[in-house]
Amino acid sequence: MNTEEVANKVVELTRKQAWHEAVDALYDKDIVSVEASGMGGESPEKRGIDAVHGKADWWIGNMEVHSFKVSGPFVAHDRFVVQYDVDATDKNSKKRFQMSEVGVYTVKNGKIVREEFLPLAGA
Amino acid sequence: MNTEEVANKVVELTRKQAWHEAVDALYDKDIVSVEASGMGGESPEKRGIDAVHGKADWWIGNMEVHSFKVSGPFVAHDRFVVQYDVDATDKNSKKRFQMSEVGVYTVKNGKIVREEFLPLAGA
Repeated sequence: MNTEEVANKVVELTRKQAWHEAVDALYDKDIVSVEASGMGGESPEKRGIDAVHGKADWWIGNMEVHSFKVSGPFVAHDRFVVQYDVDATDKNSKKRFQMSEVGVYTVKNGKIVREEFLPLAGA
Repeated sequence: MNTEEVANKVVELTRKQAWHEAVDALYDKDIVSVEASGMGGESPEKRGIDAVHGKADWWIGNMEVHSFKVSGPFVAHDRFVVQYDVDATDKNSKKRFQMSEVGVYTVKNGKIVREEFLPLAGA
């Protein structure tokens, strides 16, 4: 798949919140996944497809998602960007929150080798 | 300036369409600027602050801008993303067009050292 095909598949699968299916189909085994900040003192940078499956498990287990809007993709060369607008409740704290962020993805040989998540500033 | 301060300044100045002021204030002299495709067979990648001023001159000289919406910034680490939604008429062809794209910017030592523009796919 070229970059745009990978990007369209990310949009299709994340709209269905099919996280594990997206990782299995589209991610390189040596994926580097970078959040804005690490949870609980962990590094914001995770490596390897198992770590990304672990993030998906954490999200699915801890969040009650009320709406999940996916916009894009924006595509050029080996890079694409997708915007996510989330309305969810943390099952532990019972706090409801809204969050907007973009994912910046890098594709190599038809697989996602890097993803970075950037939250809306000042939000 | 840190990444978020640079990002906020880009949003402030591009909302005013103050292109040259943005380049002078925020860009590294060795900036690398990457478009989705090159114009007229040129490389999509330009280097140096003079080339970026040249792109701004071309835009200002060739476009009648009806509206220019700037969304974001999205910020993490040394990277930020801004979305641009443009409604403009090409002064040469007289054709009016709408375009959405994101800029993915990389900051080093308080200056923008790389920018990549990614158009909305399928648009």
